[in-house]
Amino acid sequence: MDSLAEVLRLFVAQRDWDQFHRPANLAKSVAIEAGELLECFQWDDDADSDRVAGELADVLTYCHLLAAKLGLDPDQIVRDKLIETAQKYPVDLARGRSTRYDQF
Amino acid sequence: MDSLAEVLRLFVAQRDWDQFHRPANLAKSVAIEAGELLECFQWDDDADSDRVAGELADVLTYCHLLAAKLGLDPDQIVRDKLIETAQKYPVDLARGRSTRYDQF
Amino acid sequence: MDSLAEVLRLFVAQRDWDQFHRPANLAKSVAIEAGELLECFQWDDDADSDRVAGELADVLTYCHLLAAKLGLDPDQIVRDKLIETAQKYPVDLARGRSTRYDQF
Amino acid sequence: MDSLAEVLRLFVAQRDWDQFHRPANLAKSVAIEAGELLECFQWDDDADSDRVAGELADVLTYCHLLAAKLGLDPDQIVRDKLIETAQKYPVDLARGRSTRYDQF
Repeated sequence: MDSLAEVLRLFVAQRDWDQFHRPANLAKSVAIEAGELLECFQWDDDADSDRVAGELADVLTYCHLLAAKLGLDPDQIVRDKLIETAQKYPVDLARGRSTRYDQF
Repeated sequence: MDSLAEVLRLFVAQRDWDQFHRPANLAKSVAIEAGELLECFQWDDDADSDRVAGELADVLTYCHLLAAKLGLDPDQIVRDKLIETAQKYPVDLARGRSTRYDQF
Repeated sequence: MDSLAEVLRLFVAQRDWDQFHRPANLAKSVAIEAGELLECFQWDDDADSDRVAGELADVLTYCHLLAAKLGLDPDQIVRDKLIETAQKYPVDLARGRSTRYDQF
Repeated sequence: MDSLAEVLRLFVAQRDWDQFHRPANLAKSVAIEAGELLECFQWDDDADSDRVAGELADVLTYCHLLAAKLGLDPDQIVRDKLIETAQKYPVDLARGRSTRYDQF
């Protein structure tokens, strides 16, 4: 099976959409789709799973397109950031608390 | 190497953070981080790549946590949605245009 | 007392910031600040009132700047939209329900 | 003419919608509508003015509802925040620059 990055690259190329995918536009698109994801939970914490899956997919798609545009591996940047976050939130200080690291 | 899903699951478990990760809160978190990603491009289309990578990683992290919480495979929902999007945006109608499908 | 629109106009003029305030940038700024407002409620529905007031002020400020840039009266567009919304959500159908108008 | 705050209060009361308007839900609503405002500028800086006015009105409406819910005067919090911002961005340092205050 083709990699997800390759599938997305082909999808965009077939439609000649790369011209619209400047990084700033993709960042706007991530925020727009994040708003639609949030709309699933606007008045109620119980959201329809299929609808959430569809909106989450849209956010992820633009994240992948932005990563590809910048030459980043989406999984790798999550792993890299997790190492930073682990340092900001050591287990003994962060356990069971939603406090921001600058409030420890 | 452990899968990204497993690494994230362990990170959260070590900090006992699962209690905060209700789907609605994760959807809010995706939107909050999407705002920070957008901030990289607030006044200028030229953004610092490292900063963008870090903020994009945060958006992706919460997307992965939400997917895991709902039992969804992040890559699979992107592939599934792409099939729907391909039907809404057939190549011959969509090529070279940023028009919404309901305006074709 | 000067009108709020006039106070904002002067604030921007003194800093020569009008050059940055293209409508697209102001729309991004509204979304960025909306994310910071949402962050007050990220993990908990109880938010600190002063913090909320400050973030809400930031959202409103960029809304006012965008309205001014487009020659719109902020209060008037809210009143105009309310008339449209009242037609979409007639009292007898909408009372006590958070249902979207296209689901009535 | 009734004040905008009074018009909004009546609109909500007639529909018995106050029960949905918890502050956290209104903050989500501001972010959702901010995403729709941003969508006007997704691929292009030239946006349709009427569409922008309508989406901006939605953001403002939820801002007003949140302010009312918290007992805040929307114009006053903008004025108060402007005084803080003026101190962070003194005219001589900020003039003609979009630099963040913590980078001066």
